[in-house]
Amino acid sequence: MIRVVLLGTGNMAHHLYDAFSSTERVQVVQVVGRNKEALKHFENTSSDFGSIAQADIYIIAVNDLSISTVKQELTEINGLIVHTSGSVPIDDLKPNKNIGIFYPLQTFSKARKVDFWTVPICIEANSQENLNLLATLAKTISHRLYEINSEQRKTIHLAAVFANNFTNHLYDIAHEICVAHQVPFEILKPLILETAQKVQSHPPSSMQTGPARRNDTETIAKHLEQLGNQKQKEIYTLLSESIKENYGEKL
Amino acid sequence: MIRVVLLGTGNMAHHLYDAFSSTERVQVVQVVGRNKEALKHFENTSSDFGSIAQADIYIIAVNDLSISTVKQELTEINGLIVHTSGSVPIDDLKPNKNIGIFYPLQTFSKARKVDFWTVPICIEANSQENLNLLATLAKTISHRLYEINSEQRKTIHLAAVFANNFTNHLYDIAHEICVAHQVPFEILKPLILETAQKVQSHPPSSMQTGPARRNDTETIAKHLEQLGNQKQKEIYTLLSESIKENYGEKL
Repeated sequence: MIRVVLLGTGNMAHHLYDAFSSTERVQVVQVVGRNKEALKHFENTSSDFGSIAQADIYIIAVNDLSISTVKQELTEINGLIVHTSGSVPIDDLKPNKNIGIFYPLQTFSKARKVDFWTVPICIEANSQENLNLLATLAKTISHRLYEINSEQRKTIHLAAVFANNFTNHLYDIAHEICVAHQVPFEILKPLILETAQKVQSHPPSSMQTGPARRNDTETIAKHLEQLGNQKQKEIYTLLSESIKENYGEKL
Repeated sequence: MIRVVLLGTGNMAHHLYDAFSSTERVQVVQVVGRNKEALKHFENTSSDFGSIAQADIYIIAVNDLSISTVKQELTEINGLIVHTSGSVPIDDLKPNKNIGIFYPLQTFSKARKVDFWTVPICIEANSQENLNLLATLAKTISHRLYEINSEQRKTIHLAAVFANNFTNHLYDIAHEICVAHQVPFEILKPLILETAQKVQSHPPSSMQTGPARRNDTETIAKHLEQLGNQKQKEIYTLLSESIKENYGEKL
């Protein structure tokens, strides 16, 4: 049985709490947060950072900028202290003796339940013993465990901005185009899903299609005319150029 | 029983053929194409456009640029002639008397089987009778039928370039970043899928996250430093600006 203290009450804390609650191999002995309203979702809560419970692992699940603030409350702690961020280096948790990273790579929102077994968990620690402990913890809730150092984690976080944040923005632009022309966005949903499903088993470059891929300048010109918004025109032009360059190279 | 002639042997023809073959309400009486090797996938084939069989509907399933060429072979045909393109207007099928559009909105590749029941089919025709015939045909293979005029179809095609072609290119950039830093692309796959799944039930704007969304200029600057490729820097900058603008407006 691994005893865990969760520090934080946001999306990440919610999903971790729910995942740990579903296994008997982990006990969340305490959830600590300043926001008393947000604490109501959890059991064994405290808003007093001065009375943190004894545990094997302390998980700081707050936004990047607050990690250093929370860490300052943990200077007396001997257990393993980890955070869940994609971009904050492990060394930011010093001078504590036992430190590490427990970074589940997924986009979490309160409105959607996530099957944690499919979520890749990236772990890193300052000793083999601490790494083993994190691996044991990760395996209680996920089948996908990766040992990733801080430099690699920065890369993953950057790639995730393209694969998640920017992709969602393209969905949003498609949505705006539909709304502007009274076409149901609904109609694009199966296409969006299939596009994501294809790259689960094929490299994205081999799945590239569209006017830019086949250098169809006539359609590209028509599309640019149709776009009412200057920013959308710029995005269309830049991404089309980028696709053309990639495809040109591969010829 | 609706009798169909398929003209074309590419991905679209393949998937339509397989879908129609699974219902007894449609009979594909002939598949016509110039590429004899490609015709081997089908039954009742012909490479002679001069001996096209009698049918209720003739489906031109070729790339946009070849539609007019194939159409010229069909001037003597009395049945309903349709094409499957997202961007070619219905009037390009004139002067034939019975014309229409049968546009399945999905990305097709030979390597992946598609559940056609979930594929939106956009139909348009030059008479109510022809529209009814296309609706009957569409319903034999899909639950999602949309009556869409040529103007709306152009909009959908444009939105699909963002939702499918450009999105796939962002996956490709994420893939390149992973490869350049020896990180497995594998690790991003659940994130890619969840991002697409979220917008099945929520508007994309409400799902936007990331450094640009929260105006985290420090992370943005670090990411731009990490990117080795000039084009990738430009894309990162432009999409981040666009997200910031959208978010700013909504405040």
